[in-house]
Amino acid sequence: MFELHPRLAEDTQPVRELPLSLLLLVNDARYPWFILVPRREDIQEIYQLDEADQQQLWQESAWLGRAAMQAFGGDKLNIGALGNLVPQLHLHHVVRYRDDESWPGPVWGKGRTQPYALAEREAVVQCLLTAMKL
Amino acid sequence: MFELHPRLAEDTQPVRELPLSLLLLVNDARYPWFILVPRREDIQEIYQLDEADQQQLWQESAWLGRAAMQAFGGDKLNIGALGNLVPQLHLHHVVRYRDDESWPGPVWGKGRTQPYALAEREAVVQCLLTAMKL
Repeated sequence: MFELHPRLAEDTQPVRELPLSLLLLVNDARYPWFILVPRREDIQEIYQLDEADQQQLWQESAWLGRAAMQAFGGDKLNIGALGNLVPQLHLHHVVRYRDDESWPGPVWGKGRTQPYALAEREAVVQCLLTAMKL
Repeated sequence: MFELHPRLAEDTQPVRELPLSLLLLVNDARYPWFILVPRREDIQEIYQLDEADQQQLWQESAWLGRAAMQAFGGDKLNIGALGNLVPQLHLHHVVRYRDDESWPGPVWGKGRTQPYALAEREAVVQCLLTAMKL
């Protein structure tokens, strides 16, 4: 049975179940930052998913990525599957701005997480869902 | 006409033309590190590729990723589309080891590049091509 890794559960807020993946918002107000976690057991690498799941994952990634860039007016989307700390396959989507605190470096492991205020978090989620037409 | 971004050309060695992408080896002996660059003009984000190209890119990514992990016996594959410095769409594939110098952080912007010796570079390319059955 698929279970979300406790570290991902701790750092994020669930947004929606997409056909394959759980869509999560990272609780860090410095960047609009979303994660897709395919609801499959014991998968660490994208190429371990079967063909149909890989295709579905990338469709969900394009859907999310395009919507997030539109909703939050970013300068660049950063997509990453790292998993060095959390082995469960998860795919980051981070909307980046030329004036964000880590630009032009990657966001992982940089600076201090800034948790959302509740209303702010809800606004970000709503804004994304509207752009995703959900 | 597609032209490789000069910064990518400078930091890498061309390996092969895959059906969609140019396959490059990053000239940094600290990690087996490969890049796919779809041979399309004026594309910054994956979702800007048409559906067929997106699908082809992910097939090439799975092909490369699986082969690189097999060829170099890594602990984890890191995949990333960042492009904050080089806007031309390019997709990193980095074979990571628990004892590499950036583990468990990402590799981008860390430490000092260690250019390959010529023979070492050729061996890495040959080893990858064999695993990719090319």
